[in-house]
Amino acid sequence: MVKFGVVGYGYWGPNVVRNLDRLDETKVVAVCDKSSAARRKVAKAYPDVLVTGDPTELMTSPEIDAIAVVTPVWTHYELAKAALQNGKHIFVEKPFTSNAAQAQELIDLAARKNLKIMVDHTFLFTGAVQKIKQLLQDGALGKLYYYDSTRVNLGLFQHDVNVVWDLAPHDLSIIDHLIQKAPEAISATGQTHLNGHEDVAFITLYFPDKVIAHINVNWLSPVKVRMTLIGGEKKMLVWNDLEADEKIKIYDKGVNVTSREGLYDLLVHYRSGDMWAPQIEQVEALTRELAYFVECISKDKTPVNDGESGLRVVRMLEAANASIRKRGELVPL
Amino acid sequence: MVKFGVVGYGYWGPNVVRNLDRLDETKVVAVCDKSSAARRKVAKAYPDVLVTGDPTELMTSPEIDAIAVVTPVWTHYELAKAALQNGKHIFVEKPFTSNAAQAQELIDLAARKNLKIMVDHTFLFTGAVQKIKQLLQDGALGKLYYYDSTRVNLGLFQHDVNVVWDLAPHDLSIIDHLIQKAPEAISATGQTHLNGHEDVAFITLYFPDKVIAHINVNWLSPVKVRMTLIGGEKKMLVWNDLEADEKIKIYDKGVNVTSREGLYDLLVHYRSGDMWAPQIEQVEALTRELAYFVECISKDKTPVNDGESGLRVVRMLEAANASIRKRGELVPL
Amino acid sequence: MVKFGVVGYGYWGPNVVRNLDRLDETKVVAVCDKSSAARRKVAKAYPDVLVTGDPTELMTSPEIDAIAVVTPVWTHYELAKAALQNGKHIFVEKPFTSNAAQAQELIDLAARKNLKIMVDHTFLFTGAVQKIKQLLQDGALGKLYYYDSTRVNLGLFQHDVNVVWDLAPHDLSIIDHLIQKAPEAISATGQTHLNGHEDVAFITLYFPDKVIAHINVNWLSPVKVRMTLIGGEKKMLVWNDLEADEKIKIYDKGVNVTSREGLYDLLVHYRSGDMWAPQIEQVEALTRELAYFVECISKDKTPVNDGESGLRVVRMLEAANASIRKRGELVPL
Amino acid sequence: MVKFGVVGYGYWGPNVVRNLDRLDETKVVAVCDKSSAARRKVAKAYPDVLVTGDPTELMTSPEIDAIAVVTPVWTHYELAKAALQNGKHIFVEKPFTSNAAQAQELIDLAARKNLKIMVDHTFLFTGAVQKIKQLLQDGALGKLYYYDSTRVNLGLFQHDVNVVWDLAPHDLSIIDHLIQKAPEAISATGQTHLNGHEDVAFITLYFPDKVIAHINVNWLSPVKVRMTLIGGEKKMLVWNDLEADEKIKIYDKGVNVTSREGLYDLLVHYRSGDMWAPQIEQVEALTRELAYFVECISKDKTPVNDGESGLRVVRMLEAANASIRKRGELVPL
Repeated sequence: MVKFGVVGYGYWGPNVVRNLDRLDETKVVAVCDKSSAARRKVAKAYPDVLVTGDPTELMTSPEIDAIAVVTPVWTHYELAKAALQNGKHIFVEKPFTSNAAQAQELIDLAARKNLKIMVDHTFLFTGAVQKIKQLLQDGALGKLYYYDSTRVNLGLFQHDVNVVWDLAPHDLSIIDHLIQKAPEAISATGQTHLNGHEDVAFITLYFPDKVIAHINVNWLSPVKVRMTLIGGEKKMLVWNDLEADEKIKIYDKGVNVTSREGLYDLLVHYRSGDMWAPQIEQVEALTRELAYFVECISKDKTPVNDGESGLRVVRMLEAANASIRKRGELVPL
Repeated sequence: MVKFGVVGYGYWGPNVVRNLDRLDETKVVAVCDKSSAARRKVAKAYPDVLVTGDPTELMTSPEIDAIAVVTPVWTHYELAKAALQNGKHIFVEKPFTSNAAQAQELIDLAARKNLKIMVDHTFLFTGAVQKIKQLLQDGALGKLYYYDSTRVNLGLFQHDVNVVWDLAPHDLSIIDHLIQKAPEAISATGQTHLNGHEDVAFITLYFPDKVIAHINVNWLSPVKVRMTLIGGEKKMLVWNDLEADEKIKIYDKGVNVTSREGLYDLLVHYRSGDMWAPQIEQVEALTRELAYFVECISKDKTPVNDGESGLRVVRMLEAANASIRKRGELVPL
Repeated sequence: MVKFGVVGYGYWGPNVVRNLDRLDETKVVAVCDKSSAARRKVAKAYPDVLVTGDPTELMTSPEIDAIAVVTPVWTHYELAKAALQNGKHIFVEKPFTSNAAQAQELIDLAARKNLKIMVDHTFLFTGAVQKIKQLLQDGALGKLYYYDSTRVNLGLFQHDVNVVWDLAPHDLSIIDHLIQKAPEAISATGQTHLNGHEDVAFITLYFPDKVIAHINVNWLSPVKVRMTLIGGEKKMLVWNDLEADEKIKIYDKGVNVTSREGLYDLLVHYRSGDMWAPQIEQVEALTRELAYFVECISKDKTPVNDGESGLRVVRMLEAANASIRKRGELVPL
Repeated sequence: MVKFGVVGYGYWGPNVVRNLDRLDETKVVAVCDKSSAARRKVAKAYPDVLVTGDPTELMTSPEIDAIAVVTPVWTHYELAKAALQNGKHIFVEKPFTSNAAQAQELIDLAARKNLKIMVDHTFLFTGAVQKIKQLLQDGALGKLYYYDSTRVNLGLFQHDVNVVWDLAPHDLSIIDHLIQKAPEAISATGQTHLNGHEDVAFITLYFPDKVIAHINVNWLSPVKVRMTLIGGEKKMLVWNDLEADEKIKIYDKGVNVTSREGLYDLLVHYRSGDMWAPQIEQVEALTRELAYFVECISKDKTPVNDGESGLRVVRMLEAANASIRKRGELVPL
């Protein structure tokens, strides 16, 4: 049984608390939020849980083994550091920190204290991403050509960060998980229209072996789109996360190019075959992720979404922002 | 009555000939193609038309008023130049030429000879683009924020150009027509996977007044997508060209941001109202475009898709390619 | 403040309790369910509510003003009767009763006792149905031609009733509400495949003035469909309840037929214009319905979904079943 | 080489002529149409073909082996009879004849003369129907439960027949081909709104072994729908004919019902697995059908879509109309 304190009960916090409350291996001991309205909601829904406005109470409580930090990104570093200093494992909302130096410091601190860091890259625990991961590992798609994600909707949710820091961490963590190679460089473009933060942005990541990734994020779209194309040498897939069923469609389609010896011409042949939509497990991703966190703590395993993974995503976010400021100039990683 | 010679009877040529044959104001006098198979097809379908493998026959024929050049891009300049030198108006397949210098030379030559150039930016003559143009002119969308097009499918049709030169001219000519401002600079990224030409590419165009445009072109997509998002201050629209009906949906959605005096905070208010899909005229765009070409010749009008328009698109294509070669480096225009 | 006892905490009961708990004008005093597992769930979620396995406790409690009957249909009559006899208003799950005689008896009993009956025809309180109702009332569709609903999915939820009694009450109550005329007769067909109850069925209702309604219900469909076409003289609409946004699309389409005097021929002219998707209010229908129940009780108003409405739906269900048994034979109403 | 005369060059005739002109094994000798405008079109498109307004010229021409009758249904019988009497094979547009007696007479006449009849049930030659046929034959779907087709659009194309005779022959011929059992009886309902012919209709066919088929046809729908659900014990499929790709989706979904001995309860278990969209051949169905007609003539084979097949469809149409007149009354077959 891992006992949790949860800091932050805004948009995502209630989901963390609900899952920790429901899992057999976890218990919510205390919840902290600065807002009294939020605290009243906790008290009504979870009468047995300690409610407070002061995070120090959680950090110093001997009853608490792990702290979930579910607050705005600019607060992550201080809260996570205090938790680690007090010997608590941490589960931190994405993106991990506001910059790479903070992330590195937390990683080092956790290592010294022998504590676990998990960064809440929830998408890695969805049935869809796990299926794609398996298809890539099994070689079903063949050599990877590209990853191209469109993640747009109407919503200017964040006042402190731009659309890149708000929406792109999802794709960056997925790309980091699927491609398993370090990106070489990033070029990104975007524009601010309303409040001084970029509300549309387009990010290209260059990987070794001609793998390329592209992310289109937009807060000013009249329609919600969550579509990713993944092209491989053998097969290609479309992941439409808004589909209730059939989220992933795998196409036996492709292009074969053969060069005839001594000839300038290339012979291009299109393959076109069946389409196949594998059944995707419907378990809530956050449930699976938190159970995995407990497993990592109890069995002393390193999570795939550890602090290093969080740091890699933060580095990509920093590079994307730096490139946007210079209108697409390549930023090496 | 304008009498045409058509050079090129491959993929698009038959559509040009069919339309010229059907229109009351035009007549096809001769068709030229290097391929004997293509020539046999012409002879079967249009027994009264002169068929030849030698373009000079068309250029020098006193019976011909205008030449349609419907051949690969690297042949446009020579054919168009010969036609103009022989006093023929020209209708040239997109992209206009292989480089800006060629385009400029043709424009100058036509001006000296008092001849018309029309570049076949067919999309400008679709009901969809004409409706969008009208909505922008009427101010229905308010101040323009962005244009974002996804134009992907399986198809490595071209051996001499990359996916940018194959697919992006559509969007670049539409953007040029809709935005009516000169782009300041282009940043583009992409990757080659199969035959040495980029098969995926992502282009960002910076315009004055914070207008940004983005084009996603891809020859390696398992699904065909033709979707453009256009965001404005008052309204936003989605143009899905693959929809049989309801190609354009206009959303009464948006974000209002008001800053409270003396306060750091911005008040963000989402508007969400009805959606409206105006009826789009279903006339074949090429029919309308060729009738307009005749009108421009007979009334001595300058086409919106004149040589200058073709040149502007070629300059953007050159800039996009230059930027891709340098992995996103900004290329001023 | 209306105080409720709720009988039944299975599939739908938790939604009723959650809404009654949340509304300012209502309070849940007690919940009854035969299943101890269900009772434990209530006790955990609502510690202050009395939990019991004996409905009589609710019927006889002086603290309770109204009883919500959220149990299988064959139990409705006994429970509702007991509630009315004890002076409680009743809110009864659809379909109202197992047969028309029971419904009539409950209506008469409520009238004598001056108590309210509301039958839970939830769909009448959705934004979509309320919008359609308004469009019909305003004459926007013109004279009504037909209502055609497809309501299919995979699911053999009921052991005691067939697919008609399970799924068709939704459409029958909507039709009753929208058309505002008594149907003349019903013809229905169907087939049993698995457990002796019809799992596919097709119902036609004949109304005066050539209005026709058709309902397609199916428990053995691999895909979920919730689509209703409504045709009128002036306009037509499609209601797709599975769309997140744009549930209702109104088409300015139609057919005009004019007969030329003395001629055999009819002149048929198609109208085709814009499509329009009005914004639909997103309030939870059950919340609105229960608030309306309180209003009917406190202001002594007759609900649109009163016992008579429930009785009309039960009569249509009985007629549909009778017709299915005789393979489509017309059953007058 | 089979030489054809084609009677009728209206909506469908041009497709027949184009295919006969293109196939190696067939030749169009003459085309007949009452309309001089239609005849001019033929003359322009096919300068070598004899054009006439008098069908007798075709019937009596010694150059002609087979007559294609592509005229309104009320003319089929006279034209087909004349052709057979003159020793010509016949290819007749669907539905075969205006009534069963006419069909029987033509069948008998052809048998005596040893001539072939093919009824143009084009859909049987689509890749989609051929794939479904194969899946059923291979037992992939298991025991068939139901066939349910929705075929609706805006269009009152016919002045002499109702929507049943216009649209339902497609489904009836497909059902006849797929189910391979004689239907026992038909119940149908419908309504006239505009010109005295039913413009909406709903047809149920009862087959042996609890197989049921349902057809929804409608000329007054604002949207075009071509969707067929087919349910089997092992698998279920959706055929959406408006999809460019993925016309057929096969779902590994179903319901297993097991009864526990001595118990009232049934155990219901849902199966839910992968979805699979097989590649469908894209050959034009009419091309394949006409090539097959030639093959049947030259090899003296009986077509699957012979006169008997046409007769069976006409009998079902007659039964459907009879049932509609009596508002759903069962008509045995």
